[in-house]
Amino acid sequence: MRSLGIGLIGTGFMGRAHALAFNNARAVFELPFNLTLAALADADTKRAQRCASAWGFAQAHGDWQQLIDNPHVDLVAITTPNHLHYPMAMAALAAGKAVYCEKPLATSLQQADAMRLAAYEAGVVTRVGYNYQHNPMIAMARQMIDAGELGQIISFQGEFSEDFMADPASPWSWRCEVEHAGGALADLGSHLLAMARYLVGDVSKVCADSQTVHAQRPASPGSTEWRSIAVDDQVHALLRFANGARGTVSSSWLKHGYKNHLSFEISGTHGTLAFDQERLNELRLFRAGEQGFQRLLAGPALPGYAAFSPAAGHQLGYNELKTLEVQELIMALAGQGAAGTDFEAAWEVERLATALRLAAREERWVNVSEI
Amino acid sequence: MRSLGIGLIGTGFMGRAHALAFNNARAVFELPFNLTLAALADADTKRAQRCASAWGFAQAHGDWQQLIDNPHVDLVAITTPNHLHYPMAMAALAAGKAVYCEKPLATSLQQADAMRLAAYEAGVVTRVGYNYQHNPMIAMARQMIDAGELGQIISFQGEFSEDFMADPASPWSWRCEVEHAGGALADLGSHLLAMARYLVGDVSKVCADSQTVHAQRPASPGSTEWRSIAVDDQVHALLRFANGARGTVSSSWLKHGYKNHLSFEISGTHGTLAFDQERLNELRLFRAGEQGFQRLLAGPALPGYAAFSPAAGHQLGYNELKTLEVQELIMALAGQGAAGTDFEAAWEVERLATALRLAAREERWVNVSEI
Amino acid sequence: MRSLGIGLIGTGFMGRAHALAFNNARAVFELPFNLTLAALADADTKRAQRCASAWGFAQAHGDWQQLIDNPHVDLVAITTPNHLHYPMAMAALAAGKAVYCEKPLATSLQQADAMRLAAYEAGVVTRVGYNYQHNPMIAMARQMIDAGELGQIISFQGEFSEDFMADPASPWSWRCEVEHAGGALADLGSHLLAMARYLVGDVSKVCADSQTVHAQRPASPGSTEWRSIAVDDQVHALLRFANGARGTVSSSWLKHGYKNHLSFEISGTHGTLAFDQERLNELRLFRAGEQGFQRLLAGPALPGYAAFSPAAGHQLGYNELKTLEVQELIMALAGQGAAGTDFEAAWEVERLATALRLAAREERWVNVSEI
Amino acid sequence: MRSLGIGLIGTGFMGRAHALAFNNARAVFELPFNLTLAALADADTKRAQRCASAWGFAQAHGDWQQLIDNPHVDLVAITTPNHLHYPMAMAALAAGKAVYCEKPLATSLQQADAMRLAAYEAGVVTRVGYNYQHNPMIAMARQMIDAGELGQIISFQGEFSEDFMADPASPWSWRCEVEHAGGALADLGSHLLAMARYLVGDVSKVCADSQTVHAQRPASPGSTEWRSIAVDDQVHALLRFANGARGTVSSSWLKHGYKNHLSFEISGTHGTLAFDQERLNELRLFRAGEQGFQRLLAGPALPGYAAFSPAAGHQLGYNELKTLEVQELIMALAGQGAAGTDFEAAWEVERLATALRLAAREERWVNVSEI
Repeated sequence: MRSLGIGLIGTGFMGRAHALAFNNARAVFELPFNLTLAALADADTKRAQRCASAWGFAQAHGDWQQLIDNPHVDLVAITTPNHLHYPMAMAALAAGKAVYCEKPLATSLQQADAMRLAAYEAGVVTRVGYNYQHNPMIAMARQMIDAGELGQIISFQGEFSEDFMADPASPWSWRCEVEHAGGALADLGSHLLAMARYLVGDVSKVCADSQTVHAQRPASPGSTEWRSIAVDDQVHALLRFANGARGTVSSSWLKHGYKNHLSFEISGTHGTLAFDQERLNELRLFRAGEQGFQRLLAGPALPGYAAFSPAAGHQLGYNELKTLEVQELIMALAGQGAAGTDFEAAWEVERLATALRLAAREERWVNVSEI
Repeated sequence: MRSLGIGLIGTGFMGRAHALAFNNARAVFELPFNLTLAALADADTKRAQRCASAWGFAQAHGDWQQLIDNPHVDLVAITTPNHLHYPMAMAALAAGKAVYCEKPLATSLQQADAMRLAAYEAGVVTRVGYNYQHNPMIAMARQMIDAGELGQIISFQGEFSEDFMADPASPWSWRCEVEHAGGALADLGSHLLAMARYLVGDVSKVCADSQTVHAQRPASPGSTEWRSIAVDDQVHALLRFANGARGTVSSSWLKHGYKNHLSFEISGTHGTLAFDQERLNELRLFRAGEQGFQRLLAGPALPGYAAFSPAAGHQLGYNELKTLEVQELIMALAGQGAAGTDFEAAWEVERLATALRLAAREERWVNVSEI
Repeated sequence: MRSLGIGLIGTGFMGRAHALAFNNARAVFELPFNLTLAALADADTKRAQRCASAWGFAQAHGDWQQLIDNPHVDLVAITTPNHLHYPMAMAALAAGKAVYCEKPLATSLQQADAMRLAAYEAGVVTRVGYNYQHNPMIAMARQMIDAGELGQIISFQGEFSEDFMADPASPWSWRCEVEHAGGALADLGSHLLAMARYLVGDVSKVCADSQTVHAQRPASPGSTEWRSIAVDDQVHALLRFANGARGTVSSSWLKHGYKNHLSFEISGTHGTLAFDQERLNELRLFRAGEQGFQRLLAGPALPGYAAFSPAAGHQLGYNELKTLEVQELIMALAGQGAAGTDFEAAWEVERLATALRLAAREERWVNVSEI
Repeated sequence: MRSLGIGLIGTGFMGRAHALAFNNARAVFELPFNLTLAALADADTKRAQRCASAWGFAQAHGDWQQLIDNPHVDLVAITTPNHLHYPMAMAALAAGKAVYCEKPLATSLQQADAMRLAAYEAGVVTRVGYNYQHNPMIAMARQMIDAGELGQIISFQGEFSEDFMADPASPWSWRCEVEHAGGALADLGSHLLAMARYLVGDVSKVCADSQTVHAQRPASPGSTEWRSIAVDDQVHALLRFANGARGTVSSSWLKHGYKNHLSFEISGTHGTLAFDQERLNELRLFRAGEQGFQRLLAGPALPGYAAFSPAAGHQLGYNELKTLEVQELIMALAGQGAAGTDFEAAWEVERLATALRLAAREERWVNVSEI
């Protein structure tokens, strides 16, 4: 069996999530590769070494370029702050290595565009971490839609709201910077746009309204110094899909009570389907002709679930979605399957977000093809 | 105690609902009038007589003008098809009588404008049957908002969806006619717009997208003859409120699984509030600083509920909302209270719906003041 | 059409509920009688007169025996405190009149036994106000069970909990007196036992555990005088049904958060059905072979619902269950239908509650036939 | 740092769950040991080798006694069929090794008793895999109860139902054998009894009713040969706790629609708390004086959650409960903490189950101290 060496850049929460996912994918799935954790990089060399040891990586690097150049590294996983995605991914692609990058792809559409072109020219497998799509319940939703079980799709109504910035005293962070692709739309909304595209297809035209409710925030927790905020706190938008469906999307990081409320309802001529990430093991489904909405609970009829549990109702957690993302990436590297969001698809998400921003700024409908 | 004679026009479902509501209001509340059921009118005189007897009305008329002219009638209640609201209300106002008209106020904005001016000149009490607002839970929501318990309101996201036209074989009806103020926006959406205005206030600017999904329907149940449909099956829109809040509204009569899904979430700087008419005795509330959403259940702390039951959890039904609407109308007639939607406010709802239609037709943001 | 004169004793909350129900039954249903509100009795003659006028009764009596003797009264409705049910019902039966009595039938099993025998000898229609059974959703549940849609019934798990006595400072009331058939089992649990019998059938054997948690309560609101409490605050029991099903019932008036939590799950070899009175317009249903529980929402396919609304999702309220109870009583008086709980069935409920009390006192299984 | 060598016996679903849990515990937590996966045993040597390689164990054994004797093994984890728990655990204890055994502790109370005594004499740390207790939401429930936030606990109502045997054609399996501690009570109910004891405390007296609904099942899937079934399909019971609380427990593997319905409501003098394993990241809580039940969602304020995710709403899955169980076991091995179910506590669960069986067989109340 061929070997596949993983190089991971970044040791924060998302770095550890990747490390767990690679470890667990190896234990849970029959993979077409002999997976090795080849190298871990962090600008703090000591931390790189400590985490490499704890997480099972063979080598540690203080310089990410060294990790990319490491001949044992076949796949470069990038979990650093957003503005580093571009240089790291470009360097990995230049080295002909497969890339697995956290979302957002980049902090500007120009960068995203360059990255997808570089990926195309490198001819390697790329993936971006839109992990919510790897939920077996979402896979099931996609299959039902593709199989026509909901009929023709006529509406998508989605919302991704959280409340971590709801308190006006929640301080400024890099998430509040335009140049780091900040704001509720970029941070949360992009997951929702990716989901809408994944389930319903291309969006052709949009209108949007965005708002900065709290125009100043403390510079740091408890600080009396205030910083101006330029990014949006909430966005509401109208979508027209290429297939004729219509819909709304909303995103807010000010909505009290919600912690991970990536939710949607999809209405078709034969049924309605609803999902809320705060109950990620469930779908609500109404089939035309039935008497009421059904609550479906994840179970081993779904392959992605069966990998983790032989019994329904045991429930998967967020980290297992990441393991599933990794497994699908590895299958793609073996030429077995095309699931997941590659750089091309991730660029489409950024393009759509850009169209929403333009529509909001100019207070008009925007054709996505304008972008 | 002064007497108040009720004259009711129409004997359909809504006519009976009015009859029940007047009867029950009399039994349940201490009213400031001696309420009498003076007269009932229906074009079918026999039916008028039969219903008058069953429902307790003193007289029956086959001609609605006679009912208006009947000296025992002080208040004219109109429950006829939409296109008759205008001539009947105008005649009642001309006769100096108070008017209680079912929604929509009229089938064109011009008529609605004439009606609110006539009401103003007549100087009488008018009300339009936006019954969902009379739910004690909605009264509670309004009070919480007015008292600042949610802080500054920053978003309203509302939806009114049902599925009674979801089957493409659901036949054409008067609800499908533009000239009867048909379509999902007019039939369902107007309730939602009235609710948004009632709870959050004036809307200043809108953008909208409407769609006729099924452009033809059978002329009658089971018919092989098809009629073209010009009204909307679904509408999605963006709202900007005068107070700075933003939001979305959606309305559809194609959404499988929903029967009376007038729902909304209101987000403020101190909390979030949610409601669904399919569970009309409940509110979901999150207060900043608390750990989770609370499910509030209607109880006798709310006066409108206490009138019907001394114990929480017993639940009110739709017809009791109508009784509460009638009670509030009667209090207004006695000069005690201004709750409810008068012709002026109902015209504002029609104006807002007209702004949505213009925005959808011209694919642009529309200032409501343009209308 | 024959006339039917109603005589109502009692003007409290339940008296008014009866008055509303008779009025509304007349307006909503095509009844086989010409229904007249003949007489209203209250020990306070002034109050009797005032209420008779407000509620539409032709006559008022200060003495309930006069009401029973009133030749215009065909049906005597009893809504007085529990200890008066026995003398009033016995007098009405002696006068050969039909009787509609609030629950519980009596305050002792001996009285209940005498009443059912007197009813049997009088040969008149009797009914006891177990109103929750008249919910169209419960009628639907019964029909599904009778039609075998759940297969063989194997378990019933029921609970009726409220929290109106949860505060130890909630004062003593007549509900705390043994001689008024007080306690959580009698006050709440009897509704649950009646429901279990209605849906699953006779109970043959029981074991039970009852407890008085707060053995003293203030003599009146805010009082510093304490009264001893002898009745149960909570009861838990095991049931064996004659048809082989097993189950549990629990009743508490100390359970914080519940307002009207009459709930049950019925499990059969082909499916599971669940209900909660706090959402009286819904049923949860799982059919063998399906993927998840369905939430069924009351709609006009159910005759009891259609009488009040032509559209699903509008919801009935508690008072409409009372109207349905009255309608079924009137149909029974016309010899059209046997729905509802007559004195015989109500005695069976009291007998079952007595068996539970004996089982709890003696800490053993009790055959209901012992009682 | 001291090293800790893990020896795992069994390679089925639960074996893999242990392997994942040890791996993840090492990556997620700062452990007080240098954890090594020393050896894996399976009667099928080839399988042992294959799994050892996939899961990262240093050695593979075809004979479990060899694993116990392996000097690199400090802790023996047992995930084999129930009847092997006894000989393996006794051998491990005899070798002076710590033992981590899946539930149930044994297949008879005599064995369980011998095991707890052997553990006592060996003086080593023991744990039994009642994994549901390690949910951070359950830890929170326990803390709230211990802190008196619910006041005095007055009732526990619990149910553990699934539907994997609901189809009468579901075949016989070892779960149907008395000598393997089979039946709904042993298989599911023991989790519930452990939970009741963990949250409310010792149970002093019980009454129970158990039933075999399907007395024969196919010998294997699709077989026409039938085998008699002696174990219970459903059990209902009454509990009295030593602290005065009362309650019910029910367990069924015939209840259609439920997949992992380990649920309970705990009622105290200051509030009510509810949980359902099918939504393991949630608690429903009513605090006296509040208006409604709150839905609490797991978040990083809970240490067991924070280990896996820095953000609320991300949700843990079943496998992470196992990782938490392993972490608590390892802390106990380091003398830091006593959380979890040791052999003594697991014997108490078996004793309680035995009391329920006796009560059911003899149809009487049983003092647990009789057993």
